[in-house]
Amino acid sequence: MSGWAEWVWTDGRLIRGAEATLSVFDRGFLLGDGLFETLRASQGEPVHLAAHLRRLRAGAEVLRIRLPWSDQTLTAAIRELLTANELSEAAVRLTLSRGVGPPGPSIPGTISPTIVLAVRPFTGYPGRWYEPGAEAILCRVVKNERSPLCAVKSTSYLEHILARDEAVRRGAEEALLLNTRGRLVEASSANLFLVIDGCLCTPDLASGCLPGVTRAVVLTVAREHGHETREEALLPEALDRAEEAFLTNSLLGVAPLVRVDGRPVGSGRPGLLTQELAEGYRLSWGRSDP
Amino acid sequence: MSGWAEWVWTDGRLIRGAEATLSVFDRGFLLGDGLFETLRASQGEPVHLAAHLRRLRAGAEVLRIRLPWSDQTLTAAIRELLTANELSEAAVRLTLSRGVGPPGPSIPGTISPTIVLAVRPFTGYPGRWYEPGAEAILCRVVKNERSPLCAVKSTSYLEHILARDEAVRRGAEEALLLNTRGRLVEASSANLFLVIDGCLCTPDLASGCLPGVTRAVVLTVAREHGHETREEALLPEALDRAEEAFLTNSLLGVAPLVRVDGRPVGSGRPGLLTQELAEGYRLSWGRSDP
Repeated sequence: MSGWAEWVWTDGRLIRGAEATLSVFDRGFLLGDGLFETLRASQGEPVHLAAHLRRLRAGAEVLRIRLPWSDQTLTAAIRELLTANELSEAAVRLTLSRGVGPPGPSIPGTISPTIVLAVRPFTGYPGRWYEPGAEAILCRVVKNERSPLCAVKSTSYLEHILARDEAVRRGAEEALLLNTRGRLVEASSANLFLVIDGCLCTPDLASGCLPGVTRAVVLTVAREHGHETREEALLPEALDRAEEAFLTNSLLGVAPLVRVDGRPVGSGRPGLLTQELAEGYRLSWGRSDP
Repeated sequence: MSGWAEWVWTDGRLIRGAEATLSVFDRGFLLGDGLFETLRASQGEPVHLAAHLRRLRAGAEVLRIRLPWSDQTLTAAIRELLTANELSEAAVRLTLSRGVGPPGPSIPGTISPTIVLAVRPFTGYPGRWYEPGAEAILCRVVKNERSPLCAVKSTSYLEHILARDEAVRRGAEEALLLNTRGRLVEASSANLFLVIDGCLCTPDLASGCLPGVTRAVVLTVAREHGHETREEALLPEALDRAEEAFLTNSLLGVAPLVRVDGRPVGSGRPGLLTQELAEGYRLSWGRSDP
């Protein structure tokens, strides 16, 4: 089943993935009416889980989905799932939908959300992501920075799929998206960082990027290390001036971005600050959340 | 089960809705990675089905989903489903996803799509939609007219849900969306038409609207009746100048739009051209597709 571990948790119980099913009338399937979180587990513990659950709850508020599960329940469920599957290094996928309901756009009055937790063995991305570093393209998918969904990790994810597909078809790992004003936003499934004149720069939330958990941790770590940081609107030309660039997400961690549209970023090799922050991020795993 | 009829068709067989399930690893559920079509059936026959299947195939091409079902198979399936459920006046929902696969944005190499056909009794929208006519708001959800998904009826539908929710909470039937350049696009689940100086006007596809099947039929009917038609960029101020307005989709048909943000459109009552085209649209059901 596509690399997933045997046991899945769904609303209070563990069942085998092959038997884990949903109604065909689940609005997650009918309308992408849901949310998700993806995170690492290491040494049997979910990494930065509190921050992921905070974002999940913020998204549920935007979507007006009432979550009947406490953070405690979800934390225990993830631990239970890792134990049942005998996994300590894993990727965790939490998928939530509004539940079984009618197919129209109106939000039904009474409806119980669907939740599924699944894990798979994971220690890092395969391929060139970390060494020699990722290559990206500037893709044609334009992100709407004014969408109420920018800050929400929703299961209406198809634009990201099309962006990534464009990258893969052009031989790159990732696609960088611009917003409607031509500013850099993020990659199809990662946040973007540039080092310009020694300062760590990343698109601000108003640019339309997802408020990534790893993005927030990396900004904190950089400041703690005494580096200047800026969240701001960035034109694609900033890539030409950057000494270094890297991508972040909760599974990828920090991965150097060494080429964009075939042109090297900086020296075209992983930079020193990138390496420092990759290590600093890795050390953050045992700490409390940002 | 939310008004659905008992039998559901999924990949070649009829099963009871309560037993119709999907894998929790279906990418339709995980990522909104799918397409849908909604259409009327009347007197046991799906209405304008060829046009719906054409749009479905166009969308599948954009998403690079290979459909193993011929138009003939899908047509026979809908008829079979209507017969099994003893329905002649019905709403038909076709939902298609990329299938069971990994959770990341990359499109998997080998994957078999999931398809579900379901029906429910339907003769028209309940409430005020036709009489005295629908009321809409200009909502805060901004549509990205440059998204590759504008022309695709995808299951990444959450923006439309948020738009509709804003309307419902403000006591209106529908939400009108503007694009990033401030032009009228469509309603949360309908196309928009205005009558200005006797001419039938509707946002052009470049405005970012879905190429609605009913929209196309209504434009054809209007031209056949000798009316001038224009597909063009329309500012919201056009609502103040309009003599009439109406909304269209395959379930709604043609429904007068009589108020926007509390202000009457034209006389605030269903207009003559609206009524003529509602009737003309209804008469098109037996004809071949646009």
